[in-house]
Amino acid sequence: MTAATGTALPQSYTVAVVGLGLMGGSLAASLRRDQPQVRVLGVARREETLEAALRGGLVDDGGLSLAEVVPQADLTVLAAPVRTIVAQVAEAGALLREGGVLTDIGSTKQAVTSAMDRTAVAGQCLGGHPMCGRERHGLEAADPDLFRGASWVLCPGRETLPDTVKAVSRLARGVGARTLILDASWHDTVVARTSHLPYVVSAAVSRAVAKAVRPDDIEALSAGGYRDTTRLVAGDVAMMVDIIMTNRDSIRGAVREMRDELGRLESGLERGDEAWLASYLESARRERRAR
Amino acid sequence: MTAATGTALPQSYTVAVVGLGLMGGSLAASLRRDQPQVRVLGVARREETLEAALRGGLVDDGGLSLAEVVPQADLTVLAAPVRTIVAQVAEAGALLREGGVLTDIGSTKQAVTSAMDRTAVAGQCLGGHPMCGRERHGLEAADPDLFRGASWVLCPGRETLPDTVKAVSRLARGVGARTLILDASWHDTVVARTSHLPYVVSAAVSRAVAKAVRPDDIEALSAGGYRDTTRLVAGDVAMMVDIIMTNRDSIRGAVREMRDELGRLESGLERGDEAWLASYLESARRERRAR
Repeated sequence: MTAATGTALPQSYTVAVVGLGLMGGSLAASLRRDQPQVRVLGVARREETLEAALRGGLVDDGGLSLAEVVPQADLTVLAAPVRTIVAQVAEAGALLREGGVLTDIGSTKQAVTSAMDRTAVAGQCLGGHPMCGRERHGLEAADPDLFRGASWVLCPGRETLPDTVKAVSRLARGVGARTLILDASWHDTVVARTSHLPYVVSAAVSRAVAKAVRPDDIEALSAGGYRDTTRLVAGDVAMMVDIIMTNRDSIRGAVREMRDELGRLESGLERGDEAWLASYLESARRERRAR
Repeated sequence: MTAATGTALPQSYTVAVVGLGLMGGSLAASLRRDQPQVRVLGVARREETLEAALRGGLVDDGGLSLAEVVPQADLTVLAAPVRTIVAQVAEAGALLREGGVLTDIGSTKQAVTSAMDRTAVAGQCLGGHPMCGRERHGLEAADPDLFRGASWVLCPGRETLPDTVKAVSRLARGVGARTLILDASWHDTVVARTSHLPYVVSAAVSRAVAKAVRPDDIEALSAGGYRDTTRLVAGDVAMMVDIIMTNRDSIRGAVREMRDELGRLESGLERGDEAWLASYLESARRERRAR
C-alpha cells in the first residue's frame, strides 16, 4: 500500500512493458516509484533504448524480444504504436504464462481487442487506453506522473475474465489513474470525435490558411486563435497516421459531421442571419465540456 | 522619451479613448504609464465605467458623449465593438478639431474605413487594428502591457494624409506595438482566416462532438486536443457576432475553403491512402506558422 495511490499491486509481482517510448517509459517510471515491490521488465526494439531504461532505473531487467520477457511476467503491457500492438498480440498471447494477463495502452481499441479475441488466451486479455499524452515523445520524455488523475479506459473482449479486469484495473489505479469500462467500438467512436477529429481539423486549418495567406502575413496577423487551433498539428505525424489508420471509419464519420456543421455556418453567414448565428455560437459555447 | 518604448508622443498632447472595455481601457492604461506627458480622456457608455476609469487613474477626465470629449482631443481612438465604431465615425468626424486625427482599434477594417471615407475629414482618418486580445473582457481586465510586441495594423482610407499615418503610428509605437500598413480589404481577408475561421471552427467542433457524444463521455474521453481546439468558443459570443457580421463574405469564403480541406481528408480516409494522408499531415505541420 502506498500513500501516493492507495492501491497496491501484490508482492513479487512482475510487470512486462513492451515498448519504452513516452507511454511505456512513463508506466515503468510510475511503477518503480509508486509500486517499488513490483519487478518491472522492459522490451525495447533497440538495444540503446533498453540500456537507457536500465541505466535510468526504469526497469529491473529486460530484453529485445517478447520471448525473452513475456513468459516471466504476471502482467504484460503492450505499449508500442497501435498497429505494432495489433501485430504483437498473437505472439504475446502465445508466450503468456499460466494465469498471466495481457493488456495494452494503445490509442484505438477495436483492432486490438479483435486481435485479442482471436488468441487462445482471450480470457486473459483486456484492451486499455489511458487518456493522456504529451507533445514530446520517446523514453527521455517519460514522466512518472503522466497517468495521475487520467481516465484509463478498459475494453473487454468477448471472453475477458473478471480476474483479468481486476488485474489491469489494479495496475491502472496503482499509477494513479481512474478506470472506466467501455465497449471497444464505442471507445473508438468517441475518441474519433474527442481526439482524432481535433487533430485532423487542426491540420485542415493549417492547410486552408497557408493556401490563402502568405507565411509572413500569417505571422503578423494572427493572435492566439490560430496558434491554439493549429497546435495539435505540430505533433508526431507518423504516430498519428498509425492511430488514424486503425480508426478510419469513425474518423471519416466525424469529419463528415464536422463538414455538415461548417455547412450550416456557411449558409447562416450567407443569409446574414444574426440571430441564428448568435444562437449557434451560444449553443457551442454551452455544450463545450472542459475539465 | 520613455525607456520602455523609445517613442514619445508630444508634450501637452490629448488622446481621447471612446469605449473603455478591455482594449480601450488597456490603451488608456498604457498611455498613462508609458506616456505620462499625454492627457488621456475617456468616453464610456455607462457612468459607472467612467467613474471606475477615473478612480483607477486610467483617464484624466472624460464624459458620456463624444461631443463632450472629441473636440478637446488631438487624437481620438474609437474602441467600442466594431459595429458601434462604424456608427460613431460620422459623429466623431464632425466633432474633430482642426488638425485632429481619428482612428479606431476595431477587429475588421473595411466597414470602418468605408465610413471614414464618407466623412468630410477623410484625410484625418485612419483605420487601425492591434492584433492582441484576451479571454477576459471589460475595464477590469485592462492591462498596460496588452499592446507590447503586438502587430498594430494600419489601414488607410482613400484620402488619408501622411501626417495622419504618422500620428497613429506614433501612438501605436508609444505603447510598444509595431506598425504594419495594409489595405483594409486584404486585412479582412487575412483575419477571416487567421482569427475568425479558428473561432467558427472551434464552435463547429464543439457542436459536432456534442451531437455525437454524451457530456460525461466527452469529459472522460478527451485530453488536451479537444480542449485546445474548442477553447476559442468560450469567448464573448456577442462580441464575436459583431465582428463576424462585418466580415461575412470573407469568413464564408474561409469556411468554404475549410470544408474543401475536410473533403480532401474525408476522401483520403475513404481510400485508406496512408501515403497521401502522411503527406497531407506533414504539409500541414510544415505550413503552420507559430511565433
